[in-house]
Amino acid sequence: MSFIPKSIEQAIEEFGKLPGIGMKSAERLTFYLLGKKNEDVERFGETIKKLKTGLRYCEKCQNFSTEAICGICNDPKRDTSVLCVVEDPLDLIALEKANTYRGLYHVLHGVISPVDGIGPDELKIVELIERVKKGGIKEIILALNPSLEGEATSAYILRYLKPVDIKITRIARGIPMGGDLNYADSQTLKKAFEGRGQY
Amino acid sequence: MSFIPKSIEQAIEEFGKLPGIGMKSAERLTFYLLGKKNEDVERFGETIKKLKTGLRYCEKCQNFSTEAICGICNDPKRDTSVLCVVEDPLDLIALEKANTYRGLYHVLHGVISPVDGIGPDELKIVELIERVKKGGIKEIILALNPSLEGEATSAYILRYLKPVDIKITRIARGIPMGGDLNYADSQTLKKAFEGRGQY
Repeated sequence: MSFIPKSIEQAIEEFGKLPGIGMKSAERLTFYLLGKKNEDVERFGETIKKLKTGLRYCEKCQNFSTEAICGICNDPKRDTSVLCVVEDPLDLIALEKANTYRGLYHVLHGVISPVDGIGPDELKIVELIERVKKGGIKEIILALNPSLEGEATSAYILRYLKPVDIKITRIARGIPMGGDLNYADSQTLKKAFEGRGQY
Repeated sequence: MSFIPKSIEQAIEEFGKLPGIGMKSAERLTFYLLGKKNEDVERFGETIKKLKTGLRYCEKCQNFSTEAICGICNDPKRDTSVLCVVEDPLDLIALEKANTYRGLYHVLHGVISPVDGIGPDELKIVELIERVKKGGIKEIILALNPSLEGEATSAYILRYLKPVDIKITRIARGIPMGGDLNYADSQTLKKAFEGRGQY
């Protein structure tokens, strides 16, 4: 595109690489920034540039952290006897925002997905098993997404943890709050019936 | 959000400021970048940081440019007797990609919109009129969007250019290619009939 300056072209290209952002959106975002103050655009760029600087995985829960042990694992108010296993840090954020769980986490950084070439070794499963074997944990809550890959990963983890004398649970599958039975798929309805609770 | 590192939080915040990107998308984009190589993330940041560096408006067409006169205005192969007036650089890009127009452009950088506090003085209308008065232009094509604001801006420009002895045209409004009469609004159908051409 010789009709636009190189810097604009490059920004469009970079935005276009992001997931869910097509060419048109990339153009729109770039020109939105062009209409912003220099300092705002530079701060945005600097923030992205430094995003990964100093980041590592927490040695305990494997979540992103700036320290060897993250804020949650270091929090004396958290219940260290419960471990919630999640697929990725976004799920952890969602759970933290829900403000309902006060135990610790373990982030797998993905699920087993042969199609994408992701096996158990690419995930933080060994770390989970070692962590559990160290003792002190009474319950493990598997909070993986109810997808094929999530179920397969749960099954894989279960195989290793079943021999250990620990309570293993999974989060409930059912109709989401505000949801509509009319629009729920048959699998969800099936799980909702199977998991029905008594008043 | 004390449970995530500051750099991640800031990136989510910055992404969230972009138009059409909500909190969830901002999180998803940030964690997408966290999964990318350091150098890729840094290049993205650097690109954004430098986006506006050295950019100015072309003295002739007012499009973004790194030089006083932009590539299009400087292109000896373009027809300097025709001027296409567009709202913003994105419209110019769309027209250039269509590869159908070989004249010059004039970018207004917006449309008259009293609701948003944008009057004629905020746009590059004075520059347009001065450019036309300098002579050499035989036709002006108004290619503003067929919105209320676009029409009002066209009307405003017309008032100043009518006295000048120049052919003034507008791009056709009608059914888009691949469109369906069934789904077209009545205004579009009206314009399509008014602008009908003979075989």
